Amino acid sequence: MNKKTYKNFYGVILAGGVGSRFWPLSRESAPKQVLKVAGEESLLLQTIERLKPLIPPSRIYIVTSAAQAEIIKHHLDASGLKELPSVIAEPEGRNTAPAIGLAAAELLKKDKDAVMAVLPSDNIIGDVKRFRETLAAAHELATNDNLVTFGVKPSRPETGFGYIKVTGRVKKVNELKSWKVGRFVEKPVLSKAKLYLKDKAYYWNSGIFVWRVEKLLSEMGKHLPGVAVPLGRYLDGAELKKIYKTIESISIDHGVLERSKDVMVIEADYPWSDMGAWSSLKDVFKPDKNGNIIKGRVVDIDSKGSYLIGSDRVLATIGLNDLVVVDTPDATLVCSKERAQEVKEVVNVLKKKGYEEHATHVTIDRPWGSYTVLEKGSSYKIKRINVLPGKRLSLQSHKKRSEHWVVVSGTAEVVTGKKKFRIKKNESTYIPKHVKHRLCNPSKKVLLEIIEVQNGSYVEEDDIVRYDDDYSRC
Amino acid sequence: MNKKTYKNFYGVILAGGVGSRFWPLSRESAPKQVLKVAGEESLLLQTIERLKPLIPPSRIYIVTSAAQAEIIKHHLDASGLKELPSVIAEPEGRNTAPAIGLAAAELLKKDKDAVMAVLPSDNIIGDVKRFRETLAAAHELATNDNLVTFGVKPSRPETGFGYIKVTGRVKKVNELKSWKVGRFVEKPVLSKAKLYLKDKAYYWNSGIFVWRVEKLLSEMGKHLPGVAVPLGRYLDGAELKKIYKTIESISIDHGVLERSKDVMVIEADYPWSDMGAWSSLKDVFKPDKNGNIIKGRVVDIDSKGSYLIGSDRVLATIGLNDLVVVDTPDATLVCSKERAQEVKEVVNVLKKKGYEEHATHVTIDRPWGSYTVLEKGSSYKIKRINVLPGKRLSLQSHKKRSEHWVVVSGTAEVVTGKKKFRIKKNESTYIPKHVKHRLCNPSKKVLLEIIEVQNGSYVEEDDIVRYDDDYSRC
Repeated sequence: MNKKTYKNFYGVILAGGVGSRFWPLSRESAPKQVLKVAGEESLLLQTIERLKPLIPPSRIYIVTSAAQAEIIKHHLDASGLKELPSVIAEPEGRNTAPAIGLAAAELLKKDKDAVMAVLPSDNIIGDVKRFRETLAAAHELATNDNLVTFGVKPSRPETGFGYIKVTGRVKKVNELKSWKVGRFVEKPVLSKAKLYLKDKAYYWNSGIFVWRVEKLLSEMGKHLPGVAVPLGRYLDGAELKKIYKTIESISIDHGVLERSKDVMVIEADYPWSDMGAWSSLKDVFKPDKNGNIIKGRVVDIDSKGSYLIGSDRVLATIGLNDLVVVDTPDATLVCSKERAQEVKEVVNVLKKKGYEEHATHVTIDRPWGSYTVLEKGSSYKIKRINVLPGKRLSLQSHKKRSEHWVVVSGTAEVVTGKKKFRIKKNESTYIPKHVKHRLCNPSKKVLLEIIEVQNGSYVEEDDIVRYDDDYSRC
Repeated sequence: MNKKTYKNFYGVILAGGVGSRFWPLSRESAPKQVLKVAGEESLLLQTIERLKPLIPPSRIYIVTSAAQAEIIKHHLDASGLKELPSVIAEPEGRNTAPAIGLAAAELLKKDKDAVMAVLPSDNIIGDVKRFRETLAAAHELATNDNLVTFGVKPSRPETGFGYIKVTGRVKKVNELKSWKVGRFVEKPVLSKAKLYLKDKAYYWNSGIFVWRVEKLLSEMGKHLPGVAVPLGRYLDGAELKKIYKTIESISIDHGVLERSKDVMVIEADYPWSDMGAWSSLKDVFKPDKNGNIIKGRVVDIDSKGSYLIGSDRVLATIGLNDLVVVDTPDATLVCSKERAQEVKEVVNVLKKKGYEEHATHVTIDRPWGSYTVLEKGSSYKIKRINVLPGKRLSLQSHKKRSEHWVVVSGTAEVVTGKKKFRIKKNESTYIPKHVKHRLCNPSKKVLLEIIEVQNGSYVEEDDIVRYDDDYSRC
């Protein structure tokens, strides 16, 4: 592949959801795409790496919700990527057609000849070379004004996906097969799914699309004015927030692909997982001879077909069959494997009950490092705060709480009021209420770890006044 | 019942084991008998309360291991009992015959006419009134030089218990049935257990015995010289530790009851559970309409026949069948209900792996209150220390660690070196290495809670020199 050929090729990664089926690992503050549920890198970073030879990060746009934009940005900042993708924040979630349309509008401003690949942020692809070949072939089809969808060859009678039926004569592009779309099929019942598995005309709709930006917007103009008209006003200078309130909430499949005559399917014949639920772990990890996938501090006696995902805590299991157990510091899930979809319901119940465990982990990543809540009482809170070398927290003050800091590793540079001083391991300082203060790690190499004991009439995260937010220097 | 009638009646509670089948709730430092696995009080305290009208705590002796004697004493101290039972510590565990023989020897010194009831420390009895009636009847039989065992009417074909076959004519004592023992039967296979369930001559051997102390020792002299001779030397003044090394390790059933001709069975027709494993919870708590027993912070969807024991952490369960899930702050058990016996194996594996979670909880009870380990690092440890009103820790010092204390609730009186001062909520102090110090709660009503940050080259529990151990005043 010649990189120059693809300089009009852009990646648009849809990263709007929380992926609550992966609770307790996923939380509102730790959506599935930033988690390492499969391998050493987050699903989002794997998606970015996979595109690299054809589409470098500088030509990647990540579309996400306003709520998640900061989380995604912090995740990218901490990724070690030399070039960073752009983040597009939707004012509110309006399904995929507006999200993709918005990205297309942004690309149009930049490059009238742009070809965009739309990709989920949470897929696992088993053969990256083959994926890239498919992407290159799709680019060629898209250049000729086709709307290209990736159809994955079914390997089981899956009832959780939509299908595409192809029609007409096969067209080979770089040795890869493509066809015109016959029709889109909603998630089928099992008996239908079994028929589709045998019938060579049916493919899984994998949610990867490639098209020219102008072609997409023109098709939207024809078939989906509820999205195209507001986007036109946005391109003419209207405020995004305003036009998003009126934009039609509809999927790209229903809104454009099922209506357009220029849709083609390219065969995606690589191993693929949508990582839809804990049961998808089998698509990524090879089960052992008992059919188990076991990670973490687990002691198992005689379980079969079970996925046992431990943590630093001890998880002991005896004689389980086809269960998923996922353990985190503050919550444990035990679930029949075949009902892994229902984890989403659990998260809804937690939300309704007002349990924080649907929203946050005990450890929260921040641009300057992370903090872990060790204990909460009615009028105190204990945290371990880790500050990365050379980073600092915002200059801040609190109205209702004071803080004791004890260094347990590294050296801290502390600002309190007009004083600035350093404390090292086994030294402590005290930050009274109302006093402006800052914590900073002056080291170039060593992590700073402090224990913070907050005391107050009540100790809430939002009892904070920030005077800056430059975390990048000390 | 006239209490005066029973003034020669003594209780001997066997409380030697850890009850590791109740892990992760039971630990070496928190044996089953001191746990509230059933109801508002520990199994041991329930056992003591159950005896009260006939045998007050002052006439109760608890036989336990040297390792557990302190744990049991602390548990009794904190119980609120006005009179405290005595604790007899065996130098080492040598099965039930020596333990019971030792208690008999101690009672003989005190009261030659003593009648002793021997009781496990971990049973649950559903009808306390009936139990006391049975105990009174057994006292009468024992007074006539019978060795009396309590036979529980089987309610299911249980393969986990030994059985007793009764023989001869029924003898009524206070309307309760009793017989001569025909034979003792080891734990049967299922087919035999089903036969025993139908046959009215078979009873469960519940491990409760009543006899005259002199009669027991005389029978031991006849049938079990391996125990009787060392005990005789002990009564003549030999050191307990020395004679225990030579004493025969054997159960009271094998050593005395199967050999003596004077053994009677009294029918125990009350609901009874030996609380042998997590599956015994059904004997104590009524399962809900789905057959579940659910405690703690649990969110369940559609489980059946499962015992879900949560904690302050969230436990979420979906579609489980006949499982036991027990969650504690540092360890979770998920176990097929029918394999609940094998929890013991898990504990053995944890021991072999050197995992501390077999031995201690994150919260450790102490005579002065308790402490909870919030986090351990390689060179620091964070604890919350709770000191009860009016109590204090020992005067102590550390060789390798220093400590920062921050008060989060109540007031502390602190001794460091030659200084003595008070710190209140939101104040802190620092204890350097080698400095003698003491922490004390001077309040009569309010709990003192402090956060302790230990820093050191390494932070081990046993880096401590104690200069006293009077915890009872401040």
